[in-house]
Amino acid sequence: MPKLKDVAEKAGLSVTTVSRVLNNRGYISRETRDKVYRVMKELNYQPNEMARALFRKKSNMIGLIIPAVSHPFFGELAYQLEYYADQCGYKLLLCNSNRDIAKEHKYIDMLKKNQVDAIIMGSSVLNVEHYLHLELPIVSFDRSIAGNIPIVTSDNLLGGKLATQLLLDKGCRKPVFVYRGVGGPHHQALLANGRAQGYEAVMKAAGIEPDLLQLKASAEDDSEEIPEMIHFFQQRPEVDGVFASSDLVAAEVIQACSRLRKRIPDDMKIVGYDDVRIASLLSPQLSTVRQPIREMCECTLQLVAKLLEEEEVPKINTFPVTLIERETT
Amino acid sequence: MPKLKDVAEKAGLSVTTVSRVLNNRGYISRETRDKVYRVMKELNYQPNEMARALFRKKSNMIGLIIPAVSHPFFGELAYQLEYYADQCGYKLLLCNSNRDIAKEHKYIDMLKKNQVDAIIMGSSVLNVEHYLHLELPIVSFDRSIAGNIPIVTSDNLLGGKLATQLLLDKGCRKPVFVYRGVGGPHHQALLANGRAQGYEAVMKAAGIEPDLLQLKASAEDDSEEIPEMIHFFQQRPEVDGVFASSDLVAAEVIQACSRLRKRIPDDMKIVGYDDVRIASLLSPQLSTVRQPIREMCECTLQLVAKLLEEEEVPKINTFPVTLIERETT
Repeated sequence: MPKLKDVAEKAGLSVTTVSRVLNNRGYISRETRDKVYRVMKELNYQPNEMARALFRKKSNMIGLIIPAVSHPFFGELAYQLEYYADQCGYKLLLCNSNRDIAKEHKYIDMLKKNQVDAIIMGSSVLNVEHYLHLELPIVSFDRSIAGNIPIVTSDNLLGGKLATQLLLDKGCRKPVFVYRGVGGPHHQALLANGRAQGYEAVMKAAGIEPDLLQLKASAEDDSEEIPEMIHFFQQRPEVDGVFASSDLVAAEVIQACSRLRKRIPDDMKIVGYDDVRIASLLSPQLSTVRQPIREMCECTLQLVAKLLEEEEVPKINTFPVTLIERETT
Repeated sequence: MPKLKDVAEKAGLSVTTVSRVLNNRGYISRETRDKVYRVMKELNYQPNEMARALFRKKSNMIGLIIPAVSHPFFGELAYQLEYYADQCGYKLLLCNSNRDIAKEHKYIDMLKKNQVDAIIMGSSVLNVEHYLHLELPIVSFDRSIAGNIPIVTSDNLLGGKLATQLLLDKGCRKPVFVYRGVGGPHHQALLANGRAQGYEAVMKAAGIEPDLLQLKASAEDDSEEIPEMIHFFQQRPEVDGVFASSDLVAAEVIQACSRLRKRIPDDMKIVGYDDVRIASLLSPQLSTVRQPIREMCECTLQLVAKLLEEEEVPKINTFPVTLIERETT
């Protein structure tokens, strides 16, 4: 099997130069680069990525920790992140934490041992101190973790305001905010709670008492929420609108209304959050707040790349949201 | 930083024994294992997984190639596979191929260079010969690849028969099979085409001409299919039933019917395939053929583990399907 040395010899270059081409480090002319690749091809040279990674202390792997890739939002997130990681020559190690503290902890240890170059945290339930000593570039998605860890998020506060204002404009008198919760809606670290704050601000400005329904934090892939919602709506017949913290929760609200024979949008108006693909496959089609998932994922990978080059990056990266009116309002 | 030697010394064991514990190889008594882990903890010993992997030629990583994790079926598949991989001490490298031949090829090269221990192919569009020289354990999901590569699949033929028989039993005279296709429905390698064959067998037995609608193979995450379906149903007003090749396609059929003001199930009856979570969140709730995704993923990891131990495994692993009747029939 040909070695790096053989490539260097045949190309008439030093081993250092060939290694720099392979590792994409330092300035290399176009001509030199092309020559190295041509010779590699001629010799059928296969660089051993793992040996190179160990040498460079780079694995070209990024760990992705999310609650569950089976959740439509995190499925789209993982898809887009993998796309941009691949564009940058990175591979994504998938970890589903189920929002379980022990599992999240275990994954972080595991990722560190596997020497991933960086971690993308799509959700975290661990306390801040677990991240402070990681000595790894981390980018957080929608959750404030610790001092210098950059965050990518959508404008949750504006999203909450737009959704609630739409419900009021369409005539709702008693819209509630329904969310699946870890901690309360004011748990500071969860930036998604900006959605609740936007809801509350608009409600207060309209002189209506805010009203929140917290669903049990579930394993993300059961549908135990529907009986819970039916019970809530039975107890509270005056409720005439729902701002749901995600499109999936909104889909469950539609099911609950269907079982209670509440007509949408006549008896109940609903706005979701995310604009994942199912939003437009529900009947009626869901009005929702669109997060620009693709752009947010592109930004996340750009931040990871900059952190790896030890460049300065902005701490808060907030993306605009758009109100999408469909048939539930 | 403590080394393996330090752990061995303190535990009063040989380096070989400690290494066997870490690599989970050969017979080790419970007592010895416990002692090694206790000393590792006392010394705060962190095995460097990558160095170990290189030494053992094991990375404890499995490459997963699927069309798109944002697709509800593949999202649930990736979630369950990651769960069972984690149980076996394996990490999953996520690759979305978009059913693009060039991308699939690139991923296979990349996975080989990264020395993954095995590959799970959730979908393949490449020809057989690309897999024959891989020298890596491969398990294929729903697609027959080559000579000795084991396959995990659901009973597509029975699923197609059950779905079609249900449509006929409910009074359909002209049910069609709608699928999103790579190649024709008889492209042998795609085991999912058993669904089409089951449909055709039941139709022929009932003396009705089979009728198939192939949608363009899309990037899995657009919804261009709906106008195409609307056009088809406008041209073919006699069609009164649809067996869709996946729940996602069925969701699109529901949308098309809604725009055409066709009532479900009165004017059109629909059966899906998969029973992913969205099936019960659609309105009306979708009748479908359930694949036991969890059990299929557990089996896939068991096959990978056996292949890694160079054990014999069954070539075809077919799981039973269940007809779930909900509101669309």
